[in-house]
Amino acid sequence: MNEYIGMVEKSLKKYNSHSNATEPQKNLIDAMNYSLEAGGKRIRPVLVYAFCEALGGNAETAAAPAAAIEMIHTFSLIHDDLPAMDNDDFRRGKPSCHKAFGEAMAILAGDALSVLPFEVIADDTQLNADQKVMIISLLSRAVGKSGMIGGQVIDMENEEKTDITVADLENMYRRKTGELISVSCVMGCICAGVFDPDILCNAADYGFKLGLAFQVIDDILDVTSTTEELGKPVGSDAEENKTTYVTLFGVEKSREIADGLTNEAMKCLEVINDNTFLKQLTEMLLNRKN
Amino acid sequence: MNEYIGMVEKSLKKYNSHSNATEPQKNLIDAMNYSLEAGGKRIRPVLVYAFCEALGGNAETAAAPAAAIEMIHTFSLIHDDLPAMDNDDFRRGKPSCHKAFGEAMAILAGDALSVLPFEVIADDTQLNADQKVMIISLLSRAVGKSGMIGGQVIDMENEEKTDITVADLENMYRRKTGELISVSCVMGCICAGVFDPDILCNAADYGFKLGLAFQVIDDILDVTSTTEELGKPVGSDAEENKTTYVTLFGVEKSREIADGLTNEAMKCLEVINDNTFLKQLTEMLLNRKN
Repeated sequence: MNEYIGMVEKSLKKYNSHSNATEPQKNLIDAMNYSLEAGGKRIRPVLVYAFCEALGGNAETAAAPAAAIEMIHTFSLIHDDLPAMDNDDFRRGKPSCHKAFGEAMAILAGDALSVLPFEVIADDTQLNADQKVMIISLLSRAVGKSGMIGGQVIDMENEEKTDITVADLENMYRRKTGELISVSCVMGCICAGVFDPDILCNAADYGFKLGLAFQVIDDILDVTSTTEELGKPVGSDAEENKTTYVTLFGVEKSREIADGLTNEAMKCLEVINDNTFLKQLTEMLLNRKN
Repeated sequence: MNEYIGMVEKSLKKYNSHSNATEPQKNLIDAMNYSLEAGGKRIRPVLVYAFCEALGGNAETAAAPAAAIEMIHTFSLIHDDLPAMDNDDFRRGKPSCHKAFGEAMAILAGDALSVLPFEVIADDTQLNADQKVMIISLLSRAVGKSGMIGGQVIDMENEEKTDITVADLENMYRRKTGELISVSCVMGCICAGVFDPDILCNAADYGFKLGLAFQVIDDILDVTSTTEELGKPVGSDAEENKTTYVTLFGVEKSREIADGLTNEAMKCLEVINDNTFLKQLTEMLLNRKN
């Protein structure tokens, strides 16, 4: 895990360096790096690497898509935090991008991080043209109007509703966070040169199950954890009157649902021979305290 | 010209339709279409088509990159108009996207239009994988931190300066508008299957000269035109104390500069045999009244 995280940090630095940047662009690159370096769990890029290696690929081949998915995730966090969106002044204990660099620069830093991933993949020297096109197709779809961004719209419009069903909630989570996690797994397979539909489908499914389990656990931790343990204020869902798995099912049943999803995710991994690390990773993510 | 514009309108509709969209996403797609349909001169996609056909390519091959470049241009306009950026309530006589759909939806509509172009190109059935990868590489670079978005940062930071030189101004225009116009011409060549560096360089150069001439003429029209002729308030540059070609050189000398750039742009077209339409288009754009 730490080895993969080290690779992510290294390639994010490489792909967004200051070389040749004039003064005003330096500020843009600083704003992009500020948020890229804020850390987080790096789950998405780790999944790209892990699926690639589990299928016999060389980790180096996964470097560009791994960096790309973390850039996309960071772009979404920067824009999510904006005053017109969630209006969050802090992100992972640090002032959010617009607090540190101003709102206009944060909008532009997010914008630049939404297109840089495609440049990084297109210019990569490890993947062939067919792999690049397939990865770009899947990635842009996972991000776009029917994927993550569509999910943000659903989340936003749910705020005004009072009768949200479990299907609504699942649909929102599936798009808002599931799509990026799922495409990370699939991109890892493609990096390894694996195009077998059975493996790709199971990898995609694994990502959706893991992503949903992850969200259910987020909902639980918001109620059961402490601010110290979680590293962010607890109880924010209740404060904002949000519908969550916990408001729909209670803590105990939600934990059962998360366990069920974890088991289903584990089953998807059976199509992969060398699945030891992926199983450990799954276990770790779902027993987390923050 | 009108034939090309018709093709642009048709493919923009095709690539951003409502099929399969659930209710909340419908609002997102409506916001995207609202701004896509606001029109404008469609110069960038017309250049993609025109370069493709001038080099013997089939216009159909240019459809995806042509739609893509107009989506990118529209995304930049939506985000440019936001309160935190230029704070413009109107765009082409209609309420700007955030006025019509709210600020959060406008941010997300811009975001969705920043990634959809890569999906449209990756999924196209006319271009081969090598053409797609080359187009995505050039396009993402033209949009990103060293291209259009970098230019917006320079423009923003110039606002606080009083000692802007002609080199500063040219650098800002080159990035903010030149890059997208230039890459439109180059993408057209690639769609035609032309990879001859001499032709690609001249096409890129033509785009930069045309783009800069276009900006110089914008600066002139802001002083010499009327609000009726221009379709937007004149005198806004002076009101905002902006440094322009007119404030640096006066109207007469600026017109000479624009004519000089036009001649240089025309010279770049000499490498293309069938350049009649491109020459007419250049002439038309530079003798415009709005």
